[in-house]
Amino acid sequence: MTEDFSGYKGRALENLKKVGAEIGDMLRVTKNAESYEGILIPRSEYSDETHIVVKLRNGYNIGIELSSETKIEKIGKGTKPTFAAPPQPTQNPRLPKVTIISTGGTIASRVDYRTGGVRPALTASDLYSVVPELADIARIDAKILFSIFSENITSKQWTELARTIAQNINEEVEGIVVAHGTDTMGYTAAALSFALQELPIPVVIVGAQRSADRPSSDAATNLIGAVSVAAKAPFAEVTIAMHESTSDESIVFHRGTKVRKCHASRRDAFKTVNATPLARMKDQQLTMLTQNYKKRSTSTHLMLKPEFSDKAALIKFYPDMDPTIIDWLVDKDYKGMILEGTGLGHVSKRSFEAIQRATEKKVVIGMTSQCVWGRINMNVYDAGRDLLARGVIPLEDMLSETALVKLMWVLGQTNDPEKAKTLMITNIAGEISLRTVSE
Amino acid sequence: MTEDFSGYKGRALENLKKVGAEIGDMLRVTKNAESYEGILIPRSEYSDETHIVVKLRNGYNIGIELSSETKIEKIGKGTKPTFAAPPQPTQNPRLPKVTIISTGGTIASRVDYRTGGVRPALTASDLYSVVPELADIARIDAKILFSIFSENITSKQWTELARTIAQNINEEVEGIVVAHGTDTMGYTAAALSFALQELPIPVVIVGAQRSADRPSSDAATNLIGAVSVAAKAPFAEVTIAMHESTSDESIVFHRGTKVRKCHASRRDAFKTVNATPLARMKDQQLTMLTQNYKKRSTSTHLMLKPEFSDKAALIKFYPDMDPTIIDWLVDKDYKGMILEGTGLGHVSKRSFEAIQRATEKKVVIGMTSQCVWGRINMNVYDAGRDLLARGVIPLEDMLSETALVKLMWVLGQTNDPEKAKTLMITNIAGEISLRTVSE
Repeated sequence: MTEDFSGYKGRALENLKKVGAEIGDMLRVTKNAESYEGILIPRSEYSDETHIVVKLRNGYNIGIELSSETKIEKIGKGTKPTFAAPPQPTQNPRLPKVTIISTGGTIASRVDYRTGGVRPALTASDLYSVVPELADIARIDAKILFSIFSENITSKQWTELARTIAQNINEEVEGIVVAHGTDTMGYTAAALSFALQELPIPVVIVGAQRSADRPSSDAATNLIGAVSVAAKAPFAEVTIAMHESTSDESIVFHRGTKVRKCHASRRDAFKTVNATPLARMKDQQLTMLTQNYKKRSTSTHLMLKPEFSDKAALIKFYPDMDPTIIDWLVDKDYKGMILEGTGLGHVSKRSFEAIQRATEKKVVIGMTSQCVWGRINMNVYDAGRDLLARGVIPLEDMLSETALVKLMWVLGQTNDPEKAKTLMITNIAGEISLRTVSE
Repeated sequence: MTEDFSGYKGRALENLKKVGAEIGDMLRVTKNAESYEGILIPRSEYSDETHIVVKLRNGYNIGIELSSETKIEKIGKGTKPTFAAPPQPTQNPRLPKVTIISTGGTIASRVDYRTGGVRPALTASDLYSVVPELADIARIDAKILFSIFSENITSKQWTELARTIAQNINEEVEGIVVAHGTDTMGYTAAALSFALQELPIPVVIVGAQRSADRPSSDAATNLIGAVSVAAKAPFAEVTIAMHESTSDESIVFHRGTKVRKCHASRRDAFKTVNATPLARMKDQQLTMLTQNYKKRSTSTHLMLKPEFSDKAALIKFYPDMDPTIIDWLVDKDYKGMILEGTGLGHVSKRSFEAIQRATEKKVVIGMTSQCVWGRINMNVYDAGRDLLARGVIPLEDMLSETALVKLMWVLGQTNDPEKAKTLMITNIAGEISLRTVSE
């Protein structure tokens, strides 16, 4: 068995080797008459060479800087984690086929029981073994595409993911499940909604706010909901499957263009904004919450449009914002930007000149609201009308995050700014809700 | 009576003068066999010279580009608006004194009944005449400080407003009301919370989502609530007074550091995030919703700290974000930035180098979450720990907007980055909620 010093290097590594301590071992570290006892935990590839990190008995991690006065003692040996290979369940040939594509994130990770750190370690087939109920719902083909925490996912991964899903749709599955970190899951859901048009089957993105081996984990229930919908649901759209409330009772399916993560840690963090979620699963029953959805159909032929441009930016407006940020982006050859303005879609007058300069250079500028909820309306106040006169595109009730992704996608489809502007205000994947009488 | 061509210039102005049409007149505009009838409405100072804008009978405004084929006919004369000087009500000497300071915005504006445009026209004493109930609640001293739509308010106005409030506190009033546009009201509320410490009396910021002469206006009820609280409430904090729900039944008072505008148009747009609002007024009764508040006290002496730095930026992270934006800000001599990260407080690995460069140059970098709700926790995942190792300050459950304002304020108080970092994680005005067991 190889020794494990994950993330330690330089002086820290030498000090650990000297006392024969490796990851998972119980240490006593004494420094300046203070003594800390805890388990040595791994560090990341970006760590420095002068600290070691131990997990104290109270659960907190502390970093201790090594100096000539620091004394490290190994007081207990760590247990090596053993992951047994999952048994391959017998697959019922009469069940629908579902492909699970894993990209990383908490649902595809496991807490290291020695260190308390969460790492993207679990393979897609591990997932399957963790949630045996899946064997009764579908024949599952599990694939690992990436193992990336979602804050690191970029449009390159969106493109690759869209292409992979398209290939799998050709393999006659009933539905696709994508396991994804929750941090940018909303952005990816929007990206797939634009990249995968005319879907014949559902594409369900699923994540977890708590990893699979924590008692409060939402991983299993979310995954069961996602696989069930992929296998059987009547709708063929890109959705996110997550807890509806803090209880395990129901999983809700959000349209990919209308959903955002609205809480840092709660299991019901994802909310559909300015619309109704597509469906709810409760007691293994799926209830449609709207009749306005695209239907599953074997006669529909996927239109794959997986190109995105990275020359689009999202700028959140704030008081005192320096408008030369807009000039800087224009000078960097950006082709588009989303301004997350205030209220009904405003930014300060002192930004107008930079905005005008940008639109004159054919940069596509769309306006959303930092309120999150509601619809912009740039016809009410002078500021809005002045921005419209400068060519800013009012993006109705589109989420800022969806607007950014759509702009990246639009600029991946066309180099013509006028076509891009038209596409931005065309409802492509349910990203714009119809105005209702009550608004 | 002078003619009114507000905002029209050049060719548009000439065309209007030719037919003797001015603002408020009913026109018929014919172009390419299409004919539009509507009221000529004013344009802003930024308008072009080639369009005129009319308000159609259905309420929509349309801009019509003038060409050689365009024919303008005046088919009706507008009525001049007449604003009668408000009667000065007799002031009851036994009522508490309240100062209303007007800064602009919808609560201080009126829809021009001819044009449907909303303009910051109403003076503070007009406000008083529009809401006669105020005469029974307090003796009111109304002042106009600015007449600015709130998207144009900057830290310069925060400073001036804080100084003006301090002067008025010295004039022995029972409370201060600030009328403010709702777009950046949350930012100003946070700014005053930090600038006005040890308040002896309440400072209530109030706005309206619908202007005073619309049937659905929330201006009067919000103002009555704000003045009542300024006059009598037991708490002496900076709060925002707005509708609690879409009905007129209750006004809720949000702590200035924990509130944000969460809907573009609803009357209950403002929500307290990650905390409980301070109080509710319903049926003229004020109910405290928490016991954790600063009490009104004549023996408390205001600490005025009105300085803000504009060398702080707010950056909302998104996939594909170019990390050189951070370098650009550092090179522009920015002293601090708030990163609005994903989930528990993450940004992509490819930003780490720029972040490290910034912190090495003593730029103060604070992390908040774009989820809006919840608390960041940078100890759970490697990404968070790596950012902490690079000197990023975890800002707990602070709103991004409040965090930006606080950083601007902190950098206005000290040039010492270490002191600034300490201040950022010190709870000064209720901006950080204590961690609760349920989290």
